[in-house]
Amino acid sequence: MTNSKPTLYTCLSPALLHLYDVRDCVVVVIDVLRATSTMATVLYNGAKEIIPVDSVERCIQLGRELACITAGERDGQVAPGLQYGNSSFEYPREFIAGKTLVLTTTNGTKLLHMALAKGATEIITGAFLNLSAVCDHLVSLKKNVILGCAAWKDKPNIEDTLFAGAVVSRIKEHFSVNCDASHMAECLYGLAKDDMYEFMKRNDASHYHRLTNFGLEKDIRHCLTADQANVLPEYVDGKLVAGPLSPKGGT
Amino acid sequence: MTNSKPTLYTCLSPALLHLYDVRDCVVVVIDVLRATSTMATVLYNGAKEIIPVDSVERCIQLGRELACITAGERDGQVAPGLQYGNSSFEYPREFIAGKTLVLTTTNGTKLLHMALAKGATEIITGAFLNLSAVCDHLVSLKKNVILGCAAWKDKPNIEDTLFAGAVVSRIKEHFSVNCDASHMAECLYGLAKDDMYEFMKRNDASHYHRLTNFGLEKDIRHCLTADQANVLPEYVDGKLVAGPLSPKGGT
Repeated sequence: MTNSKPTLYTCLSPALLHLYDVRDCVVVVIDVLRATSTMATVLYNGAKEIIPVDSVERCIQLGRELACITAGERDGQVAPGLQYGNSSFEYPREFIAGKTLVLTTTNGTKLLHMALAKGATEIITGAFLNLSAVCDHLVSLKKNVILGCAAWKDKPNIEDTLFAGAVVSRIKEHFSVNCDASHMAECLYGLAKDDMYEFMKRNDASHYHRLTNFGLEKDIRHCLTADQANVLPEYVDGKLVAGPLSPKGGT
Repeated sequence: MTNSKPTLYTCLSPALLHLYDVRDCVVVVIDVLRATSTMATVLYNGAKEIIPVDSVERCIQLGRELACITAGERDGQVAPGLQYGNSSFEYPREFIAGKTLVLTTTNGTKLLHMALAKGATEIITGAFLNLSAVCDHLVSLKKNVILGCAAWKDKPNIEDTLFAGAVVSRIKEHFSVNCDASHMAECLYGLAKDDMYEFMKRNDASHYHRLTNFGLEKDIRHCLTADQANVLPEYVDGKLVAGPLSPKGGT
């Protein structure tokens, strides 16, 4: 009988993050192609932890200090000086289990650090690969939520908006959603959900073109598939680790 | 045989305007509820000119100096100290023809001044009421286009995004559209176009609620109707005036 549901907002670009108060929220960092998809896969396949860093230099330095794996991309390709890239397929369990990965990406790790700088205390990462884990966690937590799209160099993109829409459509009954961006994202997801790859292609998604030019169709299709790596990456003390899964809570 | 079409981008919020180079473009300022709808109506009904200003104080001052009509709103209501508000219905031809209006609004006039400050040299205003005039002009002009949504206090909103989508759907064949925001806007417009009022209502558009609370349903319905005031408001020397209409050019 009360109207005390927590709020849910979708922030379509890091350049809009200042419009939202991240301090009392759980912030979901979304970079579907491909940072947060890779993060889900790496933790799902048993990595000990991921250290997200915001520069290639810092990635190389930390990799040397900790004697761990360095990975990352700039503009969709493996960054020079790093060992691995930003594809889920580079991190099978037999390779990554038990290991530490230092990762830097164009947009996703940048947004995560922005949210931290603005005072966010609870940050998780979301992608279609761990959609259910994210939704169940948000419903269980009963806190205000900001779905933060990493976008592409601050320009809103289709794939991160679609993921925000997927989350909204699953959990909106549990939240007060006074946010046009969330409603628009949900509408788009409704249009796209039956074949998101085809939707990206038909609508000339800019990142679809960018990655297709690098021969990464298989990567895109994988990143648009739900629950293939159903893990909850939580940012704790500078590292992403697999948090405990919540019971099914979505609608 | 050449690929020399001009570009078209949609900017979903004034807070993203810095991502686009406005200098060599025509910028369409979009504030459907209600600044650019009012601007279209006022000029269509024969006003001599509109002077858009960014503060209520400046509006009062200029109204006194020029002995002209002052109008504007803050947060959806007539701003204290101004004579008229931001509804098309306040400006019938018999009242406004031949007159000068000084206008200030929450988001639309702000975006216009931002675009100017960033070096835009060609600015027009767009709303559903003058959809065809805007589309025909953009097609005739053959210049790069930025569809600039005024949004609501920098948060993207449904109605401005829908208008951007309507423009994209009409003129995209004439442009190179490498812009996810434009494609998303077009998809949303495709979903909404048969009954945009119902779409706004069903999707809990925040401005729908804001204006409905002020009893402005009739205003909203009017602002979502195409071509009821088919004029081309052009910003020239600090004033919006009715420019010449271009021949039909949309697809």
